[in-house]
This record gives sequence, C-alpha cells and structure tokens, in this order.
Amino acid sequence: MKLYEQFAEQISTLIRTGALQPGEKIPSVRSASRTYEISAATVFQAYYLLERRGLIEARARSGYVVRSHVNGILAEPEFSDAHHSKLKISATDVDVSELVFSVLNSIKDPTTIPLGSAFPSPALFPLQRLSRSMTKSLREMPTHAVVADMTSGNANLRRQIMLRAVASGNKYTADELIITNGALEALNLCLQTVTNPGDMVAIESPAFYASLQVLERLKLKAVEIPVHPRDGIDLDILAESLTRLPIKACWVMSNFHNPLGASMSDDKKQKLCELIAQYQLPTIEDDVYAELYFGLHQPKPLKSFDQQNLVMYCSSFSKSLAPGYRVGWVAGGKFSDKIHRLQLMTTISSSVPAQAAIADYLQHGSFDRHLRKLRETLENQQHKMLQAIERYFPQSIRVTQPKGGYFLWIELPPEVDSLQLFKLALTQGISIAPGPIFSASQNFRHCIRLNYGNLWDTKIENSIKVLGKLINSFQHS
Amino acid sequence: MKLYEQFAEQISTLIRTGALQPGEKIPSVRSASRTYEISAATVFQAYYLLERRGLIEARARSGYVVRSHVNGILAEPEFSDAHHSKLKISATDVDVSELVFSVLNSIKDPTTIPLGSAFPSPALFPLQRLSRSMTKSLREMPTHAVVADMTSGNANLRRQIMLRAVASGNKYTADELIITNGALEALNLCLQTVTNPGDMVAIESPAFYASLQVLERLKLKAVEIPVHPRDGIDLDILAESLTRLPIKACWVMSNFHNPLGASMSDDKKQKLCELIAQYQLPTIEDDVYAELYFGLHQPKPLKSFDQQNLVMYCSSFSKSLAPGYRVGWVAGGKFSDKIHRLQLMTTISSSVPAQAAIADYLQHGSFDRHLRKLRETLENQQHKMLQAIERYFPQSIRVTQPKGGYFLWIELPPEVDSLQLFKLALTQGISIAPGPIFSASQNFRHCIRLNYGNLWDTKIENSIKVLGKLINSFQHS
Repeated sequence: MKLYEQFAEQISTLIRTGALQPGEKIPSVRSASRTYEISAATVFQAYYLLERRGLIEARARSGYVVRSHVNGILAEPEFSDAHHSKLKISATDVDVSELVFSVLNSIKDPTTIPLGSAFPSPALFPLQRLSRSMTKSLREMPTHAVVADMTSGNANLRRQIMLRAVASGNKYTADELIITNGALEALNLCLQTVTNPGDMVAIESPAFYASLQVLERLKLKAVEIPVHPRDGIDLDILAESLTRLPIKACWVMSNFHNPLGASMSDDKKQKLCELIAQYQLPTIEDDVYAELYFGLHQPKPLKSFDQQNLVMYCSSFSKSLAPGYRVGWVAGGKFSDKIHRLQLMTTISSSVPAQAAIADYLQHGSFDRHLRKLRETLENQQHKMLQAIERYFPQSIRVTQPKGGYFLWIELPPEVDSLQLFKLALTQGISIAPGPIFSASQNFRHCIRLNYGNLWDTKIENSIKVLGKLINSFQHS
Repeated sequence: MKLYEQFAEQISTLIRTGALQPGEKIPSVRSASRTYEISAATVFQAYYLLERRGLIEARARSGYVVRSHVNGILAEPEFSDAHHSKLKISATDVDVSELVFSVLNSIKDPTTIPLGSAFPSPALFPLQRLSRSMTKSLREMPTHAVVADMTSGNANLRRQIMLRAVASGNKYTADELIITNGALEALNLCLQTVTNPGDMVAIESPAFYASLQVLERLKLKAVEIPVHPRDGIDLDILAESLTRLPIKACWVMSNFHNPLGASMSDDKKQKLCELIAQYQLPTIEDDVYAELYFGLHQPKPLKSFDQQNLVMYCSSFSKSLAPGYRVGWVAGGKFSDKIHRLQLMTTISSSVPAQAAIADYLQHGSFDRHLRKLRETLENQQHKMLQAIERYFPQSIRVTQPKGGYFLWIELPPEVDSLQLFKLALTQGISIAPGPIFSASQNFRHCIRLNYGNLWDTKIENSIKVLGKLINSFQHS
C-alpha cells in the first residue's frame, strides 16, 4: 500500500469511528502535511482518493469536509426480525427453493437493472487479461495434465492459493486443499460430508439463499441464529442452541456476510472457535467476499483461529476475479479426505483449463492491483448508492454500510411487503432481492438486498428513484 | 464416409459375421474392382485400411487373407457370474467406494502403464486445436456472457449439441437440454432427482464403478441385472425384477457398455422402452462412448425409442474430444426442470470458457474428421491388444471384442483372483481394473477390464506379456 493510501486510510478511520463528524472540516493540506510529516502532494493524493470514495467533499471557502451521508441520517438496522427469535430456538424444515427460483427466474432478463443479482458486473473483471492467461497456459500445458489435473487439481493453482492464504494470515495446509466448481460446490460437499438427512444445522438468519437451498436439498433442518448487521452471528444464542439441540454442523460467513455485510471481530472469531471446539462442531466458513474489503487489511477468516481442524474454509474466484470460470476451493480441515472423495463421485473436478488460466493469472497477472482497483470501485459505488437511497427513500428506513462486498441490506417501513415490492419493481425493469428468500422461516418481509456491484450511471440512479417512489406508495396506500 | 471406407466396411462385415473365415482369402484387388464396380485404387485403399485395422494380412503368393484372431481361438465371455443370479433377484446395499478408491489411488502414479485407467490417452485428442478455439471464443465473448451463460449454458454449445443429436438420430428438444460438469454430474443429478434414500435402482451387472458409487452416495439399493457381453442387459430378468420389487429407477448403457463393451440392438432398445413405459420407470441412459463406434453408423440411443420422456440421456465430450474440460450434458425428458434446479443448487453450471471453446470447436474444428481418426486408432489398438492377449494369456480365457469404445473385458481362469492380480501387476508398474469394482455384490472376481485407449508400443505390448506371466503363475500355484 502506498503512503497516500495509508494516510487516506487513517483519515477514513477517523471518519468511520466518528472522531470526525459529518460536516466537520478535515485538516487542511498544509496542516496535515506538517502534522503527519508527509509531503503536501501526498496529502492531496489522499484527499483526492477520499473524495472519489465519497467520504469527503470540497466546500467553497471551507476546504474539505466530511460528507453527511457517513454515519448520517440513515440509521443502521438492528437485529431486526431475528431479534425476536431469541425466545424461540427451534429447528425449521427448509422449503425456500420455489420462492428463490421464482425470484431468480424472473430476473434473468438481461435488460433488467440487476439490483437483485448475486454477482457484481462482469465489466469489473480483467476478463481479457484472464483469457491471455488461458491461451498461454493451454499452450504450455503438458498433454497428460488434461487428465492428470482432474483428480489432484492444477499444481500451480494449488501453490498460488496456498501463497495467498499465507499472505492473508489464513492457516491451512496443502493437504487440506481441494479445488472445486466454485464455492457453491465446496459448501455442498462440506455439508453433505458432515451431516445425514434430518440433521440440524445452525445457520445465520438472514443467510444467503443458496445455503438454505443446500439445506433443503440435503433434507436438513435449519436452526436459525440471528446475525447483527454490523458484527455478525449472535454467539449467545448460538451457544444456547448448542446446549438445547443436537446440532450437527454450523455454517457461517464471518466476513462481509451475504446479505447483511456484517463482519465478526477477531475477538468474536476467537470466541466462536472456542465454542465450536467445545462442541466439536464441524463448521463451514463461506468466505467468498474476503478480498473485497475497503479497510487496510483483509479480515482474517474464522479458520485462522481454529486449533482443531473443525473449520472447512470455502472460497472462490467467482466474486473477485473470474465469474463463470467456476473455480473455487475448500480447505477442509479434518474432513478433507471425505470431501474430496465425495467430489470424485459427483463432478470429479473443476474444469482443467479454467484452473490453469487462473493459476497463470495469479502468478503473472497483477491480481493485487486488480483487487485494489475493484475495492475502490465498489466502495465508490456503495457511496453513490447510499447517497441515492438517502435522497429517494423515506427517512425511516435503515440501511447497512458494510466495509466490504457489494450488498446493502435495507429495512423498509413495516408496511412495505418486499415480495410485493419485488413484483412492482420488475414491472419497471428493476430487480431487487426480497428479504424472505434469505430465511428458512421466511422472515424479513420488509427487508431487501440491493447490489451495488454495477458501474454507477443514471440508469441505476434512476432505478433507486423509482424504488423510492414504489416504497412510498406503500405508505400512502 | 468415403467410397473406400464404405467398401472396407462391407468386407469387414463379411469378416465379422463369419462369411469370410479366418485364414480365408479375400477377393483379389482385380476381382473386387470388377465385382463391386469400383476402381482398383479404391479397393487397394480399402484393403490397406483393413490391414491397418488388423482384420486382414498380406500373405506371400496368397494375397490378403482374414487374420486368425478375428472370431479366432479366444472365446467371448458368456453371462459369467451374473448368469447365476437369475435365480436370486435381490436388492443390495452398495459399499464399493473403499475398494474403488484404493484401486484408483494406487494407479495415480503417472509412470504406471494405465491399462486400468477409465480414460483414453490424452494424446489422442486435438488439444492444441481446442485451445485455439478457446482463445478465439474468449476474445469474441460478450462481457455479460461470462455471468449470463452460467444459468442457461452457452447458446452456441446448446445449438451444436442439438445439431449433432439430430444428425445421429437422437430425439430430444432444446428444452430438455442441460449442460453439466461432465456426464458424471449429469448422472448424479438425474439419479438424485428421481429417487429418495433407501430406494431400489435397477443397475447393470457388471456396471461402471462410478455409477455404483453414486448409488452408494445417495444411499440407494442396487438391483443387479445381468448384462450379456455382446447385446447388453437381460430384459427377462429386468422384467421379472420390476414385477417383484418396487424399483424406482433404472440405469443403463445401451452402447459400448463399460466394462463389457456390449451394445443393445435397436430391437432390444425398443423392447426396453416398452418395458419402462409399462412401469413408468425413470431411466438414466449413460451414452458417453456412442461416438466411438467402429461400424458404419453411430448406434442409436435408447432415448430415440422413448415415447414417454422417461429416458434421461447423459453424455459428454470427455471421452471423444476434451478430457479435463468437464463439459457434458443431459436431455432430461420430463425430469429436466427438476434436474436443472438441482444443478443450480449444487454447482450452478459448467465452466463458461470450457463451454465456449467446445462450442467453437464443434462449429469450426472438424470434429467429425477427428472422430473418424480416433475410431480408427482405437479399433487398431483393440486389434493389437487382442493379438497380444492371444499370444501371452492362457488359451482358456474369454475376451470381449467390442465394436466400439476402448475397453476389453476378460474372464480369466477361475483360480485367478483379480484383486490379487491387480496388486501383483502394480508391483510391475502396470495397472488393471479388477472385476469386483464393477459390482455391488463384488462379483467378477476372476475378471479384469483392460484399457486399449493408449497408443500401442512395446511398453504396452510388454505389459500384456507380464500380465500373462502373472496369470499363469496362479494356475501353477
């Protein structure tokens, strides 16, 4: 990270923590240069970056001030619906697929503004550079590799993943590593490895709908544990659930949770690991957004606090580099052998050319530079969307302000039915993700998830405006 | 097909049916030219082809004669073990994975002569040409396709598969078609769609071990139906099993069965379709070797006789074009929607670049020419291996002589334990596939499957010699 980026981060932390309040002036270039002993040019670069990220804005005669949307008038959601479930710890049969598929099918039209999509815009990825890596790696691939790489995975890809794991403070060994068809296959294999039909699984509420579908497919029961929008799963309720119910596995997203954007602190991750160690609970960690952090460092995964090899760490390149390539991985802890065998019985392996292309790109293709740019773009788009929401949505809504990823979670006024809103928005060519698809008990009826992973333009700005009108129409009806 | 190929096929049919006996002279070039009204050059080209395929050989002063190995001293297997099971129709819990994995793990060493492998040599495939198709298709791919192609599959690939289906007499619609991660994922999805844990599934005996593993994984019971080494599954026993047991699905390979090489006649396929219609039995057809036929035409799939959309037709490019790309498909009949939903919940899709590359190759890359060459190579290698077996194995063995694919199935003398032989052969750097891995009840203990999908050379010739010695050592011990 360059000096100006480091300095920008310092200021940004002051803003986020409230040390610098909205509307307040930030240090002038001259005074900052003196105080922090850096050149004026560096300060200027940093402020320019903060401006692009939407954290500060230039005001005539005042210099730069903190923008009002940051910690501004829009409140963050609380525990929302899930909060009430404190009193009713229970296991639910999962039956969300019909609803999820009806939502996903209706947003397939490519002309729809994809605020309901689970993917960021493919325009954000270095697809042409990747395809050069593909060409090169196929040319250099020894003939036998096209068959041999199936069972063991591409050796260079395994090496590159291990290198990045070490660099980001993750802790797993090459023995544990299995290359999969995206993270979704990894998650499926893990859950199937450690459960039998009818078993109970502790899962976050809300949770990514695909994880609920996996539970449904494997005929597992969901024990829904509330997630705080800022710092993740409620450990007290999880602990109590583990006391009361014969839970066989746990599924968490410790960083940039989908849909809430919540991230657990290191301290909380440590505590969660102690809890799962106490119950010897196989735990599946879905960490696909980890690289999309807006702060100084990549947050550590739960896996790095796990002393007992109970955590199966799942991730992929689908959200950070290569959507559609279907290359992910799992570091399966003590369950690795079983997970791998299950894969050999179902899909054998991820596509060999896709593995080779990604391996070459990781080795030669400036992945870190791409990621820096991607993070900056996403942070900027988050800011733009928050601004538009502030402008067009009723002031009584609550919205998350996650420190990574590309989703906002919005609590609408209680009279808004998000499934109804979903249908109305579709008629206007806009997709959203309605709250109930994120819950086994179909809670979150007045919540929606919006995707800010698309390049900001007037079409998207306008779609927020239209959504605002539709939301207001509920209040007046 | 060229004129000389057609003529070669005519002569080859005469040989196969026994109209021309081993050792017998075939028509001289001059007389054939006159009789069949073709040029002498064409006759010569045809005879040269037949010689390369090992069907005829030139003898001094006699011209060409039929080689003795064809319909020669080595007998074909009968119903073998499975024959006895006529009297005991029953459902078996499947527990083969440990054995299968111990076999597969031990043959991973790349220096091993891979007679036990399930794949043909990658050297037989147009990998460089495919990689040019990859480069081109990635360059031309619209950015949005890398995400959009996931749920629906590459449109051009779907088109190309449909075109080939029509050309080969298969009957399915684009609506039924789902692109999968190889045929194995297709087979898994199909079986899971139409069964629940504990259900009974009619499966061939012997059967490809991966299909047994799928049954095991899904906790299904196998009702093993004997397969005749020449014409496939025993319909009488299948019919009787359907009367007696609540069978929920059936799994067949109607063409070039793995491991037997058996192919059902059209008449038999018709009868099987009548049977499954009578019982409304969901039927999974694994047709991955269909393109590797040695005769004049690609054999028709079971699916083409199915009036009721009960057949789920599974195939892939892994055995005919692109091993390691992990691109297959299923035409799922009336079960298509459910199959596709299941895929969206597990792997989402096959790798988008791999799909695009294969689509481009199918459209521009002379797939048919590649296949003609591949078939000729495989037929020639089959001949070479049969010759070597005739020379080095005891005369009491029985061996199949399939009309396609790349496997021989050999019944050894009853005192030979194929698992023991497998271990002994490995110590000599040779892998074989022992019979019991192809059976839920671990029958076929004195049988082995050999792969002739590798370019014939002295190393492979020698490995057959070594196997022969090992087999003889059982007889003398």
